[in-house]
Amino acid sequence: MADKLSMTVMTGSVDRLIGMAILAGGAVAMDMEVEIFLQLWGVYAFKKDVIKSNMNLSEFKEKGEQVVKRMKELNLPMWFDILKQAKDSGTVKIYACSTASTLWDVKKEDLEMVDDVIGAGEWLLKAKDASVTLFI
Amino acid sequence: MADKLSMTVMTGSVDRLIGMAILAGGAVAMDMEVEIFLQLWGVYAFKKDVIKSNMNLSEFKEKGEQVVKRMKELNLPMWFDILKQAKDSGTVKIYACSTASTLWDVKKEDLEMVDDVIGAGEWLLKAKDASVTLFI
Amino acid sequence: MADKLSMTVMTGSVDRLIGMAILAGGAVAMDMEVEIFLQLWGVYAFKKDVIKSNMNLSEFKEKGEQVVKRMKELNLPMWFDILKQAKDSGTVKIYACSTASTLWDVKKEDLEMVDDVIGAGEWLLKAKDASVTLFI
Repeated sequence: MADKLSMTVMTGSVDRLIGMAILAGGAVAMDMEVEIFLQLWGVYAFKKDVIKSNMNLSEFKEKGEQVVKRMKELNLPMWFDILKQAKDSGTVKIYACSTASTLWDVKKEDLEMVDDVIGAGEWLLKAKDASVTLFI
Repeated sequence: MADKLSMTVMTGSVDRLIGMAILAGGAVAMDMEVEIFLQLWGVYAFKKDVIKSNMNLSEFKEKGEQVVKRMKELNLPMWFDILKQAKDSGTVKIYACSTASTLWDVKKEDLEMVDDVIGAGEWLLKAKDASVTLFI
Repeated sequence: MADKLSMTVMTGSVDRLIGMAILAGGAVAMDMEVEIFLQLWGVYAFKKDVIKSNMNLSEFKEKGEQVVKRMKELNLPMWFDILKQAKDSGTVKIYACSTASTLWDVKKEDLEMVDDVIGAGEWLLKAKDASVTLFI
């Protein structure tokens, strides 16, 4: 069985989502499986009407412009493009928390790249077999 | 031996504490044990004189009112009620970091639901047997 | 083989870095190995021209002054001094993410305590053998 990277994504901030996406891409490159569970702000950030326009940062908001400018200079892809590429080339499953989906009043179809809506208990049964578990 | 969910809780923000409490509840529902270690803001948020009044968010502060309103509409319990219920129905141990407790000048009795005050080394000996380890 | 604590450090905020450093120190005290991978703000915070002057907090910015004052009263060392001491007395390896290093235009020599610059894939191969994995 392949090693698995399990990420519980509470954040909806672009800086932390970049970190998450780079880890997902790195895991797929190493033939690891990736499983992601979106909680509160994570579900919000994957909404089809939010994913591309959201520019929230979790830290150093005053440096946001500088970082974005530098990312464009370096032609770095956006976090959702990195994640989409990982999903296309490897095994990346994305789940939305059922409670958070109720809170935002969204279904699977309203969210980008999400494979299913599940509860926290079901998520933990998946997470306990992972080699690497992270809360983002 | 039951699988164990180990959470190191640095945060004192309600959004992240909701995520933590939902994971604790889900773990207990799946017969997993839960161990929690409170660091800096985590100890602050569990203070008896803070736990119910604290409304700090870690992200998207401008959406706080909307989220709280929606949680009331859905009759979702507060994070500490979810955690208390998990503690009543399963094995959930909560430890406060000794350094952080000194910093806030609190003892076990000043904190809600805390079972003991321990050091980081002792905490890591507990964490290393867990199936799922998260930093919140 | 010794148990290993693996921390992926996205944050550049002093409160979360204190938590990270205390965990590293505790792990070394228990004869565990420690491996750290710096992402976006983590690389920024380890820059030689930033590490000592950076006072950013991730949460409760309005309580920053109170916490710093109290830490001085208690003679608590700064996070980088705790980490340096852990590195001197045990096995602590610190890696900077290659993408983040390009973004900040830094080399290993521009960063404090960093042993190497590596990619996310290589990092995950290290992380998957750890007993405790955290995203800070």
